[in-house]
Amino acid sequence: MINIAILGFGVVGSGTAEVLTENKKIIEERLGCEYNIKYILDLRDFPDSPFSSLITHDFKDILDDPEVSVVAEMMGGSHPAYDFTKACLEAGKNVVTSNKEVVSTFGVELCEIARKNGVRYLFEASVGGGIPVIRPMINDLSSNKINKISGILNGTTNYILTSMKNEGASFDDALLCAQKLGYAEANPSADVDGIDAARKIVILAALASGKLIDPRAIPTVGITKITLADTEMAKEFGCTIKLIGYSEIVDGKLCAFVSPRFVPTTNPLSRIDDVFNGILINANMVGDVMFYGPGAGKLPTASAVVADIIDIIANIDSEVKPIVWETASESDINNFSEYSCPRVFIFNCKANIPASLSKYEIKESGNNICGIMTDSITENEADTIAAEFGNNNLISVYRVL
Amino acid sequence: MINIAILGFGVVGSGTAEVLTENKKIIEERLGCEYNIKYILDLRDFPDSPFSSLITHDFKDILDDPEVSVVAEMMGGSHPAYDFTKACLEAGKNVVTSNKEVVSTFGVELCEIARKNGVRYLFEASVGGGIPVIRPMINDLSSNKINKISGILNGTTNYILTSMKNEGASFDDALLCAQKLGYAEANPSADVDGIDAARKIVILAALASGKLIDPRAIPTVGITKITLADTEMAKEFGCTIKLIGYSEIVDGKLCAFVSPRFVPTTNPLSRIDDVFNGILINANMVGDVMFYGPGAGKLPTASAVVADIIDIIANIDSEVKPIVWETASESDINNFSEYSCPRVFIFNCKANIPASLSKYEIKESGNNICGIMTDSITENEADTIAAEFGNNNLISVYRVL
Repeated sequence: MINIAILGFGVVGSGTAEVLTENKKIIEERLGCEYNIKYILDLRDFPDSPFSSLITHDFKDILDDPEVSVVAEMMGGSHPAYDFTKACLEAGKNVVTSNKEVVSTFGVELCEIARKNGVRYLFEASVGGGIPVIRPMINDLSSNKINKISGILNGTTNYILTSMKNEGASFDDALLCAQKLGYAEANPSADVDGIDAARKIVILAALASGKLIDPRAIPTVGITKITLADTEMAKEFGCTIKLIGYSEIVDGKLCAFVSPRFVPTTNPLSRIDDVFNGILINANMVGDVMFYGPGAGKLPTASAVVADIIDIIANIDSEVKPIVWETASESDINNFSEYSCPRVFIFNCKANIPASLSKYEIKESGNNICGIMTDSITENEADTIAAEFGNNNLISVYRVL
Repeated sequence: MINIAILGFGVVGSGTAEVLTENKKIIEERLGCEYNIKYILDLRDFPDSPFSSLITHDFKDILDDPEVSVVAEMMGGSHPAYDFTKACLEAGKNVVTSNKEVVSTFGVELCEIARKNGVRYLFEASVGGGIPVIRPMINDLSSNKINKISGILNGTTNYILTSMKNEGASFDDALLCAQKLGYAEANPSADVDGIDAARKIVILAALASGKLIDPRAIPTVGITKITLADTEMAKEFGCTIKLIGYSEIVDGKLCAFVSPRFVPTTNPLSRIDDVFNGILINANMVGDVMFYGPGAGKLPTASAVVADIIDIIANIDSEVKPIVWETASESDINNFSEYSCPRVFIFNCKANIPASLSKYEIKESGNNICGIMTDSITENEADTIAAEFGNNNLISVYRVL
């Protein structure tokens, strides 16, 4: 009998209890062993929940109970989630989590503490919600060197961008609608400013490279400045605007950033709409593979949390290779000003076009708004061209995926 | 040091040698142990290959060498691939394969022999080429009950259907082009008649249900009768025609079949084009997830073969839960005549329309060809309606996904 404790009885925590209960029979059959939810930690009581008898307000009940060998942390936020995770790992308990903030900030330390204590720290649900991506990267692309990762990693922003594209909604209207539907928080900053996507892309980049970058240190642009004129121009170029978390290894150095990009409709990411997520991985032997599915939501995310719990229970007596990450140093990270990709410049058609753009075709999307797509140029070159436009005439610049 | 033998030095066999060699450093780092390709079995010699010194023509060299613990079978066909696999497993050697014919026909017996002998029989590369799908089904969707699987499982037919849709090529012209490009064999029957897809869907269905159906026993229709008029009609209904391997568990009974289907463009499978494959899985907690990538090809398929080899080496001293399948009995399989889904009837506009269809909208795609999409009806009901049309007026009937 394996005893499990759940930290945090919010959306994902209660979903995890539900998956463990609803599918108990098939999971126990697959495992060949039984399990039991022994505690649920939350500050609140849930008198009407079927799990109410399991609620405790005292973390020490869990920490000090030697019967608890698996802890599922779904509290969200850095503290006390990080502190409780650390304490559990040090006490020889396995921990699984959906908390990308903790994994992206403290992942190096927590993986090392897990390794030292002979337990595991797993976080499939921290990226892509219910989509299997972390374990497939470790186990299924194990024969490959991973070159590039590009992902639609945030469902809220993808919902907003889909509304703008398909219904011609403005950013503000689409955000309001997302909030009404419960897809966006009252304070939507973590989503719309790209912070959530930044946390997720550094986790994926660390799986590919072994180096974890501070998510606050990567170039991060959200979707708040995208206009309907931009989405119209994207159509002119056969593209869709998506918020892309991107990571690439160039000459052994890591490049990672988050920004809205023009995604050509030939790229499968261009066709991932609404709250769905997709992660496209380019690896040296397999080429391009994509994982697609629900990037958030109670039961999908809980499905991934429980997959981690099952992985731990199934291998509880085996030696499993631990995840070993290092903190990325400055020398591990590329010089972002040298990152190179095609750009789209969107500008007032009356503007004087910089000489370096004269060789490209100009497209007009109406309302006197023009656009040019360049070949690959660096950030530095793009900045130089932008300066040549003068502020009043240049409307926006997009990277192309 | 782990010694590996490769059976068959064709496309995938030579790709496997290449992946094992090209990525040797990173794979050995991940494994924390070294490996070596000791033999390659083939009837031919390859004097110009860098692997020529490893070639043997005698299977007994491999079978009798106690140093060989992992055998990669990439011979294709049932015999001697099945016989060699069985002999290796009985001799206590782990076997990995890309051979869907052997897995779909002899999987129950071979998994059981592996279990009895304490070794593993893995076949990630048998479905979806380089796309991780089998291990994710086992490990990542482990917290779910799998309800439905729908897959574009054959790259050749998907290439042909994409050419028909996008370029207006006839089936014959598109097939010829696929043959010129090396995507289709001189004898394309296994692909265009749906036999390859049938083998793959029974493997996926067995992973979901534990019951392996004889692939020759499932209803299988290929793409040879699809006309440009059909692809035009699909567009009228907002659909794309795809060859779909389908499996569903209805009231505890397995339903599996292969046929061309109208796939609504809202379904992500509708947008998978050319030689790519996609497998969409619906499971009770996560909802819909899709795995996308190259469904064939030398290095992609070899990437999956080597992932299996790595899995075996990484867990060589651990007890891993074996795959246990049973042969599906008649009582495990549903009555196909009761399978229910919407249909599209394509007919001469001059036809008398059966009364049961009178409530539906009629679409016309030009050339006097009309179409009606029904609500969900059973196979039996569809047959009855088809008979009412009379042979001369009914052009074709499609299931809708």
